[in-house]
Amino acid sequence: MKTCVLIIAVVLFSLLALAQSQPQLNLMPMPASVQQGSGTLPVTQSFSVSVTGAHDAALEAGVQRFVAQLSRQTGIPFHPKAGAAATLTVHADKGLEAVLKLDEDESYQLTVTDAGAQLFAPTTLGALHGLQTFLQLVTITQSGFVAPAVTIKDQPRFPWRGLLIDVSRHFIPVDVLKRNLDGMAAVKMNVLHWHLSDDQGFRVESKVFPKLAGMGSEGHYYTQAEIRDFISYAHDRGIRVIPEFDTPGHSRSWFVGYPDLASGEGPFSVENENGPSSVTDPTREETYKFMDKFVEEMGKLFPDAYFHIGGDEVDGKFWDGNPKIQAFKQAHGMKTNQDLQAYYNQRLQKILAKHHKTMIGWDEILHPDLPKTIVVQSWRGQESLAAAAKQGYGGLLSYGYYVDLMWPAARHYNVEPMSGGAASLTAEQQKLILGGESCQWAEWVTPENIDSHIWPRNAAIAERLWSPQDVTDVNSMYARMHAVSLELESLGLTHDSTRDQMLQRMAGISDITALRVLADVVEPVKDYNRWSDEKGPIDFHAPLTRMIDAVYPESDAAREFSNLVQQFVQSGYKDQAAEARIRTWLTLWRYNDAKLHPLLQQSALLQEDIPVSQNLAMLGAAGLQALDYLDKGQSEPDLWKAQQMAVIEQAKKPVAGLLLMVVAPVQQLVEASGEASR
Amino acid sequence: MKTCVLIIAVVLFSLLALAQSQPQLNLMPMPASVQQGSGTLPVTQSFSVSVTGAHDAALEAGVQRFVAQLSRQTGIPFHPKAGAAATLTVHADKGLEAVLKLDEDESYQLTVTDAGAQLFAPTTLGALHGLQTFLQLVTITQSGFVAPAVTIKDQPRFPWRGLLIDVSRHFIPVDVLKRNLDGMAAVKMNVLHWHLSDDQGFRVESKVFPKLAGMGSEGHYYTQAEIRDFISYAHDRGIRVIPEFDTPGHSRSWFVGYPDLASGEGPFSVENENGPSSVTDPTREETYKFMDKFVEEMGKLFPDAYFHIGGDEVDGKFWDGNPKIQAFKQAHGMKTNQDLQAYYNQRLQKILAKHHKTMIGWDEILHPDLPKTIVVQSWRGQESLAAAAKQGYGGLLSYGYYVDLMWPAARHYNVEPMSGGAASLTAEQQKLILGGESCQWAEWVTPENIDSHIWPRNAAIAERLWSPQDVTDVNSMYARMHAVSLELESLGLTHDSTRDQMLQRMAGISDITALRVLADVVEPVKDYNRWSDEKGPIDFHAPLTRMIDAVYPESDAAREFSNLVQQFVQSGYKDQAAEARIRTWLTLWRYNDAKLHPLLQQSALLQEDIPVSQNLAMLGAAGLQALDYLDKGQSEPDLWKAQQMAVIEQAKKPVAGLLLMVVAPVQQLVEASGEASR
Repeated sequence: MKTCVLIIAVVLFSLLALAQSQPQLNLMPMPASVQQGSGTLPVTQSFSVSVTGAHDAALEAGVQRFVAQLSRQTGIPFHPKAGAAATLTVHADKGLEAVLKLDEDESYQLTVTDAGAQLFAPTTLGALHGLQTFLQLVTITQSGFVAPAVTIKDQPRFPWRGLLIDVSRHFIPVDVLKRNLDGMAAVKMNVLHWHLSDDQGFRVESKVFPKLAGMGSEGHYYTQAEIRDFISYAHDRGIRVIPEFDTPGHSRSWFVGYPDLASGEGPFSVENENGPSSVTDPTREETYKFMDKFVEEMGKLFPDAYFHIGGDEVDGKFWDGNPKIQAFKQAHGMKTNQDLQAYYNQRLQKILAKHHKTMIGWDEILHPDLPKTIVVQSWRGQESLAAAAKQGYGGLLSYGYYVDLMWPAARHYNVEPMSGGAASLTAEQQKLILGGESCQWAEWVTPENIDSHIWPRNAAIAERLWSPQDVTDVNSMYARMHAVSLELESLGLTHDSTRDQMLQRMAGISDITALRVLADVVEPVKDYNRWSDEKGPIDFHAPLTRMIDAVYPESDAAREFSNLVQQFVQSGYKDQAAEARIRTWLTLWRYNDAKLHPLLQQSALLQEDIPVSQNLAMLGAAGLQALDYLDKGQSEPDLWKAQQMAVIEQAKKPVAGLLLMVVAPVQQLVEASGEASR
Repeated sequence: MKTCVLIIAVVLFSLLALAQSQPQLNLMPMPASVQQGSGTLPVTQSFSVSVTGAHDAALEAGVQRFVAQLSRQTGIPFHPKAGAAATLTVHADKGLEAVLKLDEDESYQLTVTDAGAQLFAPTTLGALHGLQTFLQLVTITQSGFVAPAVTIKDQPRFPWRGLLIDVSRHFIPVDVLKRNLDGMAAVKMNVLHWHLSDDQGFRVESKVFPKLAGMGSEGHYYTQAEIRDFISYAHDRGIRVIPEFDTPGHSRSWFVGYPDLASGEGPFSVENENGPSSVTDPTREETYKFMDKFVEEMGKLFPDAYFHIGGDEVDGKFWDGNPKIQAFKQAHGMKTNQDLQAYYNQRLQKILAKHHKTMIGWDEILHPDLPKTIVVQSWRGQESLAAAAKQGYGGLLSYGYYVDLMWPAARHYNVEPMSGGAASLTAEQQKLILGGESCQWAEWVTPENIDSHIWPRNAAIAERLWSPQDVTDVNSMYARMHAVSLELESLGLTHDSTRDQMLQRMAGISDITALRVLADVVEPVKDYNRWSDEKGPIDFHAPLTRMIDAVYPESDAAREFSNLVQQFVQSGYKDQAAEARIRTWLTLWRYNDAKLHPLLQQSALLQEDIPVSQNLAMLGAAGLQALDYLDKGQSEPDLWKAQQMAVIEQAKKPVAGLLLMVVAPVQQLVEASGEASR
């Protein structure tokens, strides 16, 4: 019996020691199964990789990129000895398909021991994912760079994990898109949804209809050679490229060169937001002849089986205002414009089918007359998705994943595709929910700041779509997202570094330390609140160089400060270490405006932020005074409290499109100083 | 009389107002003549450029780059109205020569008024320089981006203003070199001296002798297509590319593929620094046949009239050890190895002349038997340069401009080509001093940190070679160099941003704020002191990822702190504002180690810096105590002073190749606290 107790004790102790030696692995998305081992695999100058199995060109190129990135990440110029055993062996049974399909096997198994690492996958695609996981395993330790011993078995939860990038509202050059593909590959996203046309620009060269980009893009478009190169770049990284040509709405740019397509009168211009707009005329046979040739050309250029026709937000007034269209509706017994759009979509779907393409569109395309092969992308929500699945239609969730709305990562992270109506679907119906897509609509981004609007928050969405449904710990997500954010910068993304460059532009040659303090605790206004600031249509040619354009969508400093205040409050105001750190923050803010004010005054780009900086100083003072009252156990005077609440109410109001994100925790301190004294 | 006084008063007042409205222009290099006007030219969305005169393709491309950079710098997507008058008109009488010569007219005249700007130049080359000046004029103000009214007449002092980049010791990819060309163009340097071969690597594809790069580069070399593209890129920016193929010394890489060229036995390897080395055998006719074909091929690849043959540091032991070479020397009546090298150079010079190339080499090639057309590049100094000029040879100064020696910018800046012996040359002889070249030898750089070893200090050297001799104000230089440093980052150089990325690598995912505090006040050891730390030959394959590799060659923080201490001392310790700022710095350092120590311990790349951080904390404490004694007017105890001097002596010693640059000013405070109390 004693022996047994001893054994149990030893086992427990060993498990405990193991647990202590196992810090959280900074993997994102979290793999389906992770079993940590003991020991570590050193990553040194002699690191090398060998490949077996199908060993196709895509895997070879993937391994080369992997080695280059591992070298960049560690700063080690690998120089393996000839003939030595490989540190990492990679095996894939089957090479990459020439055109990736929806149902590819993306699984892999990665084993790391102190003696070496093995990666096995049924396909090159899975092996590419496994290489990304290995990169995330490598960390610096007291004994150099290592990968911890671990056994990982992994595969995605959903087969469709996409990112939509709108390149119409602001043109985004290919090199910027390519680094975003690198970021997607790092977090195992596999679909780039390319929103290539909208009212503000038609971004693809068409040789059949040269006036589309020729007159509808102000010269900012992709040549077919660039597109082929881009698709190949994506394919090498296991990413499918789905083009979207939005129709019949959101299509003013088509009409600049081809006004006959429109339901109303031109002349149309992509430049003039005050000029005539329209939607496609679905009643003319010429429209379908045009679309047939167009889909034929674009269908060849974009090899993926899916073809996105948009279909959202069709403004019926352009049909209502055209007597011929009204007559057509009447003649065909159509009561609503929805009926007319369904007619258009049916004809379009036949054209797509003729050219071997499967139609995707937004919620609005859903209509029982369309075949069950189509896929509905939902900006409306899980209920809409569930309703489609119940009718037998495949669906993608984008509601809740609009990164342009400036939500915190946690809010996106908590959007579960299988919640709500989707949770009550049959197993068969649930399979129709293919995954989701984050959406980067481009009203307010330029090539300079688009990375920071997408990353690192997009990694949280990528995890939602890849990892098991029960991976939901928000604190763990933020910790791992921080690590992935650093990895993405090392990959060449600029989501982090661009902020200081933009701040420096506003500051001229002045030091930006105090400006950073302010920028650290503000966020842009949320949802569509920026739009409502605009008087009239957005000027898509205006510079996006204000503080609102530079700051991160989510303030880490504010979140950390808020957590600190929670910790302090929950300790019954007794946690002195937390209080000291709270005071350090508040003091920094209290005195920052005095340093910053002269700079804000001297720059046309910063003057609008003067009140924000003043509000921050007042919040700092209010918080410090509240702590003083708390420390003394005094009840604060009513007048003081009223004053502070006035400051807080003022600081809550957006100024220059900026929200001060530390208002709530400071308010908590001010209110606590009343509570505590009671 | 009263009227006269009034007029004088008004004039004086106007001049005063003008002076007040004229902050220093952040131009670097400072133009030959600058006359500031009144008013400013707004740079807005409607900004546009028109070009008249020769209007060649190079100027057209230069204007396009200019507009793109101005747009990047200001964040404004220019959108001029059709038909509106141009904001800037650019006129060049003559286009860019297909092959740039030494004596091009590089002058330009730039006039900015509140109504518009005019740039006139005799050549496209001058116009390109003027566009760079315009970019440096534009600043952010209360009313937006503007260029101040100014009339600039400018031309260079020296026609040869070069940067040498060694790509042999560490290979530097073309994209990194290209961004350095952009930097050179920004500071009006006009020669890229490409040190293409050395013992550690032969970096150019030769189709005639494919084993040169094939066996002598470990696969890291430039293809001829890449070289042509690079030369064209440089030419577009008004920069000549001079190739250097170092011979007969520094040429082990040639012998890997062609061992017969060597004076001694192989087998040779670029990889093994412990293996056999050698120098070229000048006694075999085959050597000259080889060089003839080689110069023919390379002479065509590199169109510039000049061809650099190196010629430095020939190790005579390889000739001494070869009986055949000894016999040859005796047979030809040569007494020294210098004679033998002179023989080699004469024959080489004839080969160069046959292929229409002018020879350049380092000091050692100077020999009266060589024609006066050759140019000597001096690593030895102004005396050596003057001696060459007296003999009628053209010369370039590189002594004092070795940026790899980690000197402060001011030290380079103070190196005047026309000082010492050169000052006493005749006007005719002085014309033979063509200019100079900064040198980036590449023992200790990688593509990751090379920018930070060159920039921004290279801008100070560029100014020395462009601006009038009397432009020597070091404070002005540092202020303007700060501005140009920001400009260079905006151009795509990474000299500033790479540091934090390297620090982050060392820190893993930890916060690097405290690590930055340490990095801000250290510099790498100077001159060749890093070499002496190496036991045996340098390992050119080792990672360069230590703190010494990441930190800036010159610490701005230390310079500013030192200036602050001088200001405080000179005020008789009465300048309280200065003292407060000194205390802020000292307090930061005093408490930084406590925050930083855990991080330093946990990373293999940072452990060696533990003593540096401790020394900084002790310096902070010593400085604070010294100020306390000064404030109280107390004489400090002898024991205390002895303790502090021990701390200071310890802190002066390099640790991990790092110098703590705030030791001297802290010592000054400690010693002052003794002085003051006397």
